[in-house]
Amino acid sequence: MKVDVRFTVPELDSGELNGTTAVVVDVVRATTTLTAALAQGAGAVFPAESAEEAIRLLQSLGREDTLLCGERKGVRPEGYDLGNSPSEFTADVVKGKRLIMATTNGTRALRAVEDADRVVAAAFVNLGAVAKAIAGDDRVLVVCAGRSDQFALEDAACAGALLLRLQDEGVALEPGDGARSAMTLAGAQPLDRDFLASTRAGRLLVDVDLAADLEWCARLDTLPVVPVFEDRAVTLSGDVDD
Amino acid sequence: MKVDVRFTVPELDSGELNGTTAVVVDVVRATTTLTAALAQGAGAVFPAESAEEAIRLLQSLGREDTLLCGERKGVRPEGYDLGNSPSEFTADVVKGKRLIMATTNGTRALRAVEDADRVVAAAFVNLGAVAKAIAGDDRVLVVCAGRSDQFALEDAACAGALLLRLQDEGVALEPGDGARSAMTLAGAQPLDRDFLASTRAGRLLVDVDLAADLEWCARLDTLPVVPVFEDRAVTLSGDVDD
Repeated sequence: MKVDVRFTVPELDSGELNGTTAVVVDVVRATTTLTAALAQGAGAVFPAESAEEAIRLLQSLGREDTLLCGERKGVRPEGYDLGNSPSEFTADVVKGKRLIMATTNGTRALRAVEDADRVVAAAFVNLGAVAKAIAGDDRVLVVCAGRSDQFALEDAACAGALLLRLQDEGVALEPGDGARSAMTLAGAQPLDRDFLASTRAGRLLVDVDLAADLEWCARLDTLPVVPVFEDRAVTLSGDVDD
Repeated sequence: MKVDVRFTVPELDSGELNGTTAVVVDVVRATTTLTAALAQGAGAVFPAESAEEAIRLLQSLGREDTLLCGERKGVRPEGYDLGNSPSEFTADVVKGKRLIMATTNGTRALRAVEDADRVVAAAFVNLGAVAKAIAGDDRVLVVCAGRSDQFALEDAACAGALLLRLQDEGVALEPGDGARSAMTLAGAQPLDRDFLASTRAGRLLVDVDLAADLEWCARLDTLPVVPVFEDRAVTLSGDVDD
């Protein structure tokens, strides 16, 4: 399998998406939270890049059975139904709902790869499920959402952990510079809550009293689901039910 | 010392250059070659981002005592005096000359940081000299030239090796995500010729029969000079003699 990692969205070369499975990683917190929401029964998650776009989406989808979720500087904006903490997305709140999720970095990354043959979302919580789902693919490109188009260590380490998992399962990898580096970073320390807290994104969450989210984001393999992004929505099947 | 590494030029936030020493790294081959040229007595190196700009510079500087150097797809373009192999830049060829060096990635990186308090160029050949020169600074940002605005492992590892050297010399570092990762990558393998040959940039050089350059680029601490970029030129003193 040819594999590489782009640590930031601008590093993507649109020509490299053809014939490729793209895996989007935004551990703190977009891909963790949307994986949690879908695992708890949400029907579809519609990523929005801005508050304005989230409102437009809400108007087009309708208020019924739709929840507006997201963050501004880490916390839930006024008027939103939910923030961006994975623990908020429980079955009794999200089951059968459509969610609009306002998340800048994660949304930009998903849209940047929409021309790939397949787009899946990964985080530590569903690492094993994603590894299984892509193990037979010829070309995989992991795209880290990063933070404001800058390198984010937790995303790089998660990308590397995914590739190491593939290797552990017997997949022969042909890694590019980014893939090799991500695997090195993943193997350099335990990828636990304290690791997340040591990163820039983690420290910013701690600063807004959301340190509890980090423990959630570090729960390896706890959600055996594969979110698929297609036609502007993320679902477990790849089919949007709206 | 606050330190961070930007693995690609677009990751730079122009606001972060104020009060900062910027170190530009383009191991294969721009910063290695310009360090070699200056160590061998070249008076100044004028980086040019394109062949067109190189010609314009040549017209403005005049042909006398000026050499046109650079590469297209790794090799010396027709009409150029020199290519981009560090071994070409011997004292008998370059001493007292002004060099125009056409190198896309390295030039872009140097220009992107020109608003920093100080801009120096580093490679493995002058790692120790640069470490000494910046050891007393408050804020250091290492900017990897990368390749076509994508991550390049050899630049990341060189950036990390520079920070590890500072640490070894007793400088207390406050590293960001990029700096931590670069140090991990630098410590993960011997940073020798074979390492360079294993990277994407190294393989491309091998493909154009320039594998010998890689041994040159891997010669740690062989050139104890600190190239400074100021007023569009790189010199050893920071003063342009033209």
